[in-house]
Amino acid sequence: MYELNDNQGTRELEIIRIKSGQRSREKDQVVTETPLTIFLNDREFVTLLCSPDKQDYLAVGFLRSEGFINTADDLDELNVDYQKGIAFVRTKTTLDLVEKLYGKRTITSGCGKGTLFSHVLDSLQSKRVESAMQIEAGVLLKLMYSLQEKSSLFKKTGGVHSAAIANREKILFYCEDIGRHNAVDKIVGECILKKVPLDDKILLSSGRLSSEIVIKGAKLQLPFIVSRSAPTSLSVDLAEQMGITMVGFVRGKRLNVYSHDYRIICLES
Amino acid sequence: MYELNDNQGTRELEIIRIKSGQRSREKDQVVTETPLTIFLNDREFVTLLCSPDKQDYLAVGFLRSEGFINTADDLDELNVDYQKGIAFVRTKTTLDLVEKLYGKRTITSGCGKGTLFSHVLDSLQSKRVESAMQIEAGVLLKLMYSLQEKSSLFKKTGGVHSAAIANREKILFYCEDIGRHNAVDKIVGECILKKVPLDDKILLSSGRLSSEIVIKGAKLQLPFIVSRSAPTSLSVDLAEQMGITMVGFVRGKRLNVYSHDYRIICLES
Repeated sequence: MYELNDNQGTRELEIIRIKSGQRSREKDQVVTETPLTIFLNDREFVTLLCSPDKQDYLAVGFLRSEGFINTADDLDELNVDYQKGIAFVRTKTTLDLVEKLYGKRTITSGCGKGTLFSHVLDSLQSKRVESAMQIEAGVLLKLMYSLQEKSSLFKKTGGVHSAAIANREKILFYCEDIGRHNAVDKIVGECILKKVPLDDKILLSSGRLSSEIVIKGAKLQLPFIVSRSAPTSLSVDLAEQMGITMVGFVRGKRLNVYSHDYRIICLES
Repeated sequence: MYELNDNQGTRELEIIRIKSGQRSREKDQVVTETPLTIFLNDREFVTLLCSPDKQDYLAVGFLRSEGFINTADDLDELNVDYQKGIAFVRTKTTLDLVEKLYGKRTITSGCGKGTLFSHVLDSLQSKRVESAMQIEAGVLLKLMYSLQEKSSLFKKTGGVHSAAIANREKILFYCEDIGRHNAVDKIVGECILKKVPLDDKILLSSGRLSSEIVIKGAKLQLPFIVSRSAPTSLSVDLAEQMGITMVGFVRGKRLNVYSHDYRIICLES
């Protein structure tokens, strides 16, 4: 179809719409999907398919989630060529791990990217989250409402996932992507580059909670993972083992707590 | 949380439900997510996170979609140990490609697995789909209705993706998975093992149409890719280039055609 224009998040196309047997040529918005190739220490490392914004955050968050960097201090260089869709990342120390981990991949069920270079169960060697932080259920309802409000501002085409990092008061950072995991990695990357600690924060996601989201959370020592969607059995198992409070189906005035519910206070009960 | 029982697709858990400030302990169903590790020619190849059924189809479909096998005749052995979550696959000929392709991965936006070992644009070297097959728009509406009916039969927990292969008359095969791509790979694997040609079939998906679904379709010479959800810009570009008719937002009495609309007949127009 003929391309009319392209902007940050969507592209206008001419399409054929058929409605009750009537055919018409119309303009339509489709969400932009674009490749981002990460070069790590001068080596082509991986190509992610993603939304076109915040690719610096995505590159850093991806490398953090996969365990190749820990903090912003590990980075020597970070340059994104948005035109070419390339992120150049150099680390201060040589990554011997890369070669070793390359051959062991777990491909997750998740929306938006899904390779975990380490086996899913290796994550259990992560330090268990021991935070004593507690939060009132009503706060989570408000934060999820806020996530949906932000998301609806941008949503023209459907199908975009959103993720956010919040404290008790409000959403601090917000990211979107066609990929559920990319959205989380963008948030992770933003927090790393801005040196925001995550061990007292809440991760909010619009999408399903599958195991690799919990693994990302465990690596970051996040005490709360919260979604308006459903968890999977494996994500519940992992959250239980990793000490993470996992909350799903946060909708209207209700929510489900799947693990470590001692962190959720319910004032009215 | 205490695990009550486990069946094929869901697991019953005890959870804490908070509703309007009232806390209660209740039983809830969560969708099962499980690891499947594929051993290819005695080498640990990849671990997919998936729903627990049809793992033979998934292993074969994954290897086909990634280009490591073409037909059932390429297989020497296929054994799935459902208890251990392992698929043993042996090919008749040695796969020299494996080593070479290992280092080049594209991680897609998609739900449910998303590594394409070959770069996304390599797919353009696939043969363009030249099928002259045409189909009436009303048939696609009926097929999508049928996909949703099948899907609602199984849907207890939300969040499961469905995919199907259909001819003009009806859905021939139907698969579900927590991963959008896994669902498609299961269908692909089933068709390969049953030696069903795909170049005159319709791929139906419940999920978003992102680029790698189109790439899978192109490799199989599928003329039609149809979804009730939205496409991405890259998937439209690829469908256009690969000669695939891509149809989205098939809902009720309407649908959108994003590429090669000459294959869609509209009797009433």
